[in-house]
Amino acid sequence: MRILGIDPGSAATGFGVVDSDSGKLVHVAHGTLRPPRSSPIASRLHYLHDAVAAVVGDYAPDAAAVEQVFVSISPRSALVLGQARGAALAALSAGGAAVIEYSASRIKLAVTGSGRAGKRQVQHMVRRLLELDRLPPSDAADALAAAICHANAGRLGALAIEAPTRARRSTLRVRRAR
Amino acid sequence: MRILGIDPGSAATGFGVVDSDSGKLVHVAHGTLRPPRSSPIASRLHYLHDAVAAVVGDYAPDAAAVEQVFVSISPRSALVLGQARGAALAALSAGGAAVIEYSASRIKLAVTGSGRAGKRQVQHMVRRLLELDRLPPSDAADALAAAICHANAGRLGALAIEAPTRARRSTLRVRRAR
Repeated sequence: MRILGIDPGSAATGFGVVDSDSGKLVHVAHGTLRPPRSSPIASRLHYLHDAVAAVVGDYAPDAAAVEQVFVSISPRSALVLGQARGAALAALSAGGAAVIEYSASRIKLAVTGSGRAGKRQVQHMVRRLLELDRLPPSDAADALAAAICHANAGRLGALAIEAPTRARRSTLRVRRAR
Repeated sequence: MRILGIDPGSAATGFGVVDSDSGKLVHVAHGTLRPPRSSPIASRLHYLHDAVAAVVGDYAPDAAAVEQVFVSISPRSALVLGQARGAALAALSAGGAAVIEYSASRIKLAVTGSGRAGKRQVQHMVRRLLELDRLPPSDAADALAAAICHANAGRLGALAIEAPTRARRSTLRVRRAR
């Protein structure tokens, strides 16, 4: 299964592609999409939409994982971030990938073992789990972390189907639905 | 000049197309785009993006006018609205239309003569100005109002160029930049 993680932002959108093969994670690619700063907002959203569509076209992911927004930010920031997410999510869906959202704490838990880990810790664990030569940039690391989180969720789901005791199944369903 | 007005929303996005020919406004089309309610958010944003792209393709506007968001809403609402705007603005820009934002009060002023007019008053004046048989639905009326506002702004700009006294020009520039 190939998973694309996306961390949308108005200035920079991180992406990361990971293959998950029966529990083994393999790094495929990562990067940061940056619309030209000086362009009007609509052009920047168009750029972001097409750049995400190009990533989907290049890597043909089976699923896309995105971090849920924890809305502790101002309405103005939420609007600006929402616009970037809207352009990116539309492009992901256009490419045919199922888009799954995970909470920030669940993603951190999946890569560091702690739902409260800092950005730096996420970067370090992403590097270690994917055996990268160097630390990925922060936005790309967050995107790779989302992809890793989905790979783990998928694996747990598969395990549940392989060993379908009633109690276990329902627990895992609840976890996946969160 | 052909102008497309857009009023993006997560449940319904109004659009309206108006031709402006040396001061005369001619209604071309209006409608409401509604992504299927039951679909996941990414699919709905994809639907909205493609529906806006189709409107741009069908009517080939020279410019697109959108109402600025007055952020008095909650961060959660701002995020949801932002996502719809992001998908719509990306599609407008992809279609090659210049996208211009106007404040809600400026749009109301352009169609009713009062920056504080209510929704119903906007609907009635849009109907009257465009000589429509019946009241346009609220979202489409807001979109048509944005288009009318841009038509007036363009006409004022053109007048300024026709009669370029220094004082008048600068006043009009300030108005357009707001």
